[in-house]
Amino acid sequence: MKLFDEHNFIQQLSIDCVIFGYKEKELKVLISKVKVELDIYTLPGGFIKQEESIDEAAKRILEERTGLKDIFLEQYRVFGEPFRINHEIFENINSLKKEWLEQGVLDENDIKWLSKRFVSIGYYALVDINKVSPQKGLFDESVDWYNVKELPSMIMDHNKMVQFALETLRLFLDQKLIGFNLLPETFTIREVQELYEAVYDKPFARNNFQKKILDLDVLERLEKKFTGAANKAPYLYRFRN
Amino acid sequence: MKLFDEHNFIQQLSIDCVIFGYKEKELKVLISKVKVELDIYTLPGGFIKQEESIDEAAKRILEERTGLKDIFLEQYRVFGEPFRINHEIFENINSLKKEWLEQGVLDENDIKWLSKRFVSIGYYALVDINKVSPQKGLFDESVDWYNVKELPSMIMDHNKMVQFALETLRLFLDQKLIGFNLLPETFTIREVQELYEAVYDKPFARNNFQKKILDLDVLERLEKKFTGAANKAPYLYRFRN
Repeated sequence: MKLFDEHNFIQQLSIDCVIFGYKEKELKVLISKVKVELDIYTLPGGFIKQEESIDEAAKRILEERTGLKDIFLEQYRVFGEPFRINHEIFENINSLKKEWLEQGVLDENDIKWLSKRFVSIGYYALVDINKVSPQKGLFDESVDWYNVKELPSMIMDHNKMVQFALETLRLFLDQKLIGFNLLPETFTIREVQELYEAVYDKPFARNNFQKKILDLDVLERLEKKFTGAANKAPYLYRFRN
Repeated sequence: MKLFDEHNFIQQLSIDCVIFGYKEKELKVLISKVKVELDIYTLPGGFIKQEESIDEAAKRILEERTGLKDIFLEQYRVFGEPFRINHEIFENINSLKKEWLEQGVLDENDIKWLSKRFVSIGYYALVDINKVSPQKGLFDESVDWYNVKELPSMIMDHNKMVQFALETLRLFLDQKLIGFNLLPETFTIREVQELYEAVYDKPFARNNFQKKILDLDVLERLEKKFTGAANKAPYLYRFRN
């Protein structure tokens, strides 16, 4: 089955997405396992259709994997080394391609397409993890959230892509207040602090942090969180767009 | 003459460079005029060879235009709208392609190559303008420095590319202290302030600015600048890497 050709897609150019979620005090990344017994892991990715913009392509790829539209999504870096393959996984990929060819999943042209050098545009996305039910891509056997500190070894330079995305997230977390995209609709200040601690991988002093966040004047205070012990319950907040 | 094909270059992917220089209190950008009587202006750009990294390609393109190696150069954004052509210049480009075809500068395959949609990786470079003697590219009739505030209307989305590059420069000027790449080897604090004023397009208070720059602790104080009036002469400084 012919999937790829240059009439439909731009050759040698791909998009890979680092999808960040946050749960149980851990920053997580959505990762596909392509073929269970071969240990081939990848970031969700895809190609750019001739008639769509790169942003539209990234949105399409993300919607396929997360079911979500309108999520925070930005390009952050292009990965363009001529040899982005990591060799320990290379043999596994080649045997997988051969298998797909034999099974008719791909045809000779697809193999030729996939075997060329690719320049990849890295996008990172921030999602409310509770809203996502991860969807398998065409070639995935499973897709799961991994703690950013305990990622499997992925194909190509995908581990490096996550590191650069994390650096970008750290750079803009304060500057552009993008972190609230990772939280549910309402949250306590303590939960914001835990998110910041997960992203920067270091503790913050509680009083300073609370003051700093409230001084930003971007949060709206709501009712107290229901905990059963009313007088000690913290307030809930919402991000005011 | 066949110049472009997919065995040598990656199709539909280009690099465009915003080369910033600084002179006479003005931030300037290096721009090519392709064909004098047609008013076609472009940023210096080119394609990526199959065997080179995108950074190597950008370095090669910059060296061709500036004669400089080892200059400050970074990717900053990908421009990937499906229709990046601006229509007022489109007709001029098409008549120019036809002329080159008739003159044998390009062949039919080159025209086909150039007529496809391109995704372009934007790089920005900071150079000491005194070290550059601008070199014409293959298709240029002239190449010159323009004040960033008085740019001609360029092909495609090249004016937008300059705006994004300028925003990136402003973002990182403080954060990464990259501005010294635009100055000669030695300079006065006043000259640094004038550079900052040109980049941000606004005045800075002299005393505050001097304190802020010196507090960074990245400058080495040298002898006084020779002005003829020894007691009022300002000190020269050098950036300590």
